[in-house]
Amino acid sequence: MTLAVTGALLDGVAVGLRVEDGLISDLGPSVEPRERDEVIDAGGMLLTPPMVNGHTHAAMTLFRGFGDDMALMEWLETRIWPAEAKLEPEDVYWGTRLACIEMIRSGTGRFFDMYWHGVEVARAVTDAGLRAAISSVIIDGLDAAKGESMRGEALELLDHLAGAGELVTPSLGPHAIYTVSSESLAWIAEVAAERDIPVQIHLSETNQEVDDCVAAYGKRPAEYLDELGFLGPRTILAHGVWLDPSELELIADRNATVVTNPAANMKLAVGGALPYEDAEKAGVALGLGTDGVSSNSNLDMFEEVKLFALIQKHASGDPATLPASAALEIARGRHSARLGGTPLATGEPADFLLLRASDPELSAGDPEADLVYAANGSVVDTTVVAGRVLMRDRVVPGAAEIAAQVRSRSERLTR
Amino acid sequence: MTLAVTGALLDGVAVGLRVEDGLISDLGPSVEPRERDEVIDAGGMLLTPPMVNGHTHAAMTLFRGFGDDMALMEWLETRIWPAEAKLEPEDVYWGTRLACIEMIRSGTGRFFDMYWHGVEVARAVTDAGLRAAISSVIIDGLDAAKGESMRGEALELLDHLAGAGELVTPSLGPHAIYTVSSESLAWIAEVAAERDIPVQIHLSETNQEVDDCVAAYGKRPAEYLDELGFLGPRTILAHGVWLDPSELELIADRNATVVTNPAANMKLAVGGALPYEDAEKAGVALGLGTDGVSSNSNLDMFEEVKLFALIQKHASGDPATLPASAALEIARGRHSARLGGTPLATGEPADFLLLRASDPELSAGDPEADLVYAANGSVVDTTVVAGRVLMRDRVVPGAAEIAAQVRSRSERLTR
Repeated sequence: MTLAVTGALLDGVAVGLRVEDGLISDLGPSVEPRERDEVIDAGGMLLTPPMVNGHTHAAMTLFRGFGDDMALMEWLETRIWPAEAKLEPEDVYWGTRLACIEMIRSGTGRFFDMYWHGVEVARAVTDAGLRAAISSVIIDGLDAAKGESMRGEALELLDHLAGAGELVTPSLGPHAIYTVSSESLAWIAEVAAERDIPVQIHLSETNQEVDDCVAAYGKRPAEYLDELGFLGPRTILAHGVWLDPSELELIADRNATVVTNPAANMKLAVGGALPYEDAEKAGVALGLGTDGVSSNSNLDMFEEVKLFALIQKHASGDPATLPASAALEIARGRHSARLGGTPLATGEPADFLLLRASDPELSAGDPEADLVYAANGSVVDTTVVAGRVLMRDRVVPGAAEIAAQVRSRSERLTR
Repeated sequence: MTLAVTGALLDGVAVGLRVEDGLISDLGPSVEPRERDEVIDAGGMLLTPPMVNGHTHAAMTLFRGFGDDMALMEWLETRIWPAEAKLEPEDVYWGTRLACIEMIRSGTGRFFDMYWHGVEVARAVTDAGLRAAISSVIIDGLDAAKGESMRGEALELLDHLAGAGELVTPSLGPHAIYTVSSESLAWIAEVAAERDIPVQIHLSETNQEVDDCVAAYGKRPAEYLDELGFLGPRTILAHGVWLDPSELELIADRNATVVTNPAANMKLAVGGALPYEDAEKAGVALGLGTDGVSSNSNLDMFEEVKLFALIQKHASGDPATLPASAALEIARGRHSARLGGTPLATGEPADFLLLRASDPELSAGDPEADLVYAANGSVVDTTVVAGRVLMRDRVVPGAAEIAAQVRSRSERLTR
């Protein structure tokens, strides 16, 4: 199937775009549809790359609004863990489907997921048409023997994900250094290197985690991971609030990626934000993520990129910190090769958005600043991933049924 | 004209609502439309009060995206002031019209405005159908004689605004203590008391302002204002980032209101946030505002209330700080009598929203938490103010023409 877009605006120039076999086959002012093309008349809408959500737990749409305004441990112990104990694989399928609808509606084309029941996550992602790096959560409770007993299942899932189609990237997701043994972490790093797949781990989200790591191992979290051979170009470190300058230099040296989650960090009141200026100075590859909706509570990367720019200006005391263009590059997954954001160019994957240029928020000024500071995800009219039209005119087929499924499952789980 | 709403959800109960003469004439589970009523079938949408934007400069839609990511003084001197020097009254009319459209689209029913050419602001507000407290900016450059020469014009505008219809509240807007002489401030306070109208002033937005005040007058800004007789139940203090506990007690004692503007404070990197916990402890009446779009860059109070809750949790280190219900009460103008937020009840003004309960962000959990953390203004389907339907199905009549007017005027002003 071939697709053509006419009359879109790219950097102020009216262009056409054609898609063949999931790739952009032609793009430019003189590109016209051919016979048999499915044609989208963009009517002056803005053509942009989609966002890349660098860290989330998609299926947690099941737990939105379940224990907001609570302290982290109380929330986990009295709300989330008891609810997750009742999770069925099918719940994860529907929770992930709803997350995909929210991401399609707010302009995300690819996401990095860490959650239970990866087979169902892959099925949901494939049905939804988004791209995702999928990792089941690995937690061995710092028990190496338990960790060893989990390896077979982890490899089985990787094999399954490897065959799950072009939209799915297999990935490994050790939860954190305080829940996974060093033996398991070292093994995971080896497997990731052998298979050349991304590894996602939460790191330095709270100050407590750093203190505990120093007390237990005599070194800071990034140094600890590095000694295990864990830090490399495949490593994605989520949060990174409490990384110090020497850790950031080490991370940059190993070419690992740090994904910041400003909304969740603020909502859970971890007391800080990614040290962006130090990270930039060290040359760390960066990404941006929403985290799961139970600590955000949405998946809107347009909202997230504004929060990212705002909290960094707030932290530095300088309004010039993290200007819009830099924030957008990070939000689009273009600052880190591992996050897979692709440019709008011939031969590249046909992943793109059409934005409603007529919305008042996009009506003036600097287009990049408007996207970061004025817009939210509701400016997205059309979302295309791998050449498939996932939303047009803000309609995602099946959205109401999926929301209803999640509502009833959520009621069962949180009762 | 009478209006009826059927099948709306209010706190989980299906209700009907009737409007006569701009007031809610009936509300409850058994309320049915009468013959000749214009009927809105809400189809399960959520019925809520609108937001009250406690501090903005509406017409600055003309300058959105014009000098983002710049330091405050550089931005004012090289961008905003030269552009404002070219402002025609008609520009302000159109800029305000666009702001009204954005507020209608994101669920604001009433706003507090401070800008030039108040006659045009009043015309725009009346044509748009929103409620607004309108004040022209008063700046005498600390020159009492100049201030005195401006009094006639200020009173003339107040007289005009007093006759501008039920949607318009006349107000006075001295810019700040560093731009308006103490003589003018004292005079303004007298006029406001005589006419019983609100006064809006920027206060303690930057630390520099506090230092300068202490250096010049030997006291902090709120103390300085109080000595002039300026602090009272009609006073609305915008920003209030650097108020100390004793100033907050004084403000509470005088029954004045503080309106916080978290997005603008973060974007301009003033280095702090309203000391919410101290303000609550002192019993200060609070409001929430977006500030002008050139320092935000939008007018979405749903986004603003999330930022408010998040920055306060971030500042306190406690996720339980400013829970959703408290944040919503403030955002709806119900925490301060001066801000005029009204409840949904028989006999009250017919100002209300219908929200799309089917949007994924509103599909689960705690409705108040969903509104604060998950939703943005795009969940608003229908906006009604004073019984007039300003938006249905997200369509505001005339929006495209108004946006086009602003685009061309903005180009002229910022060239």
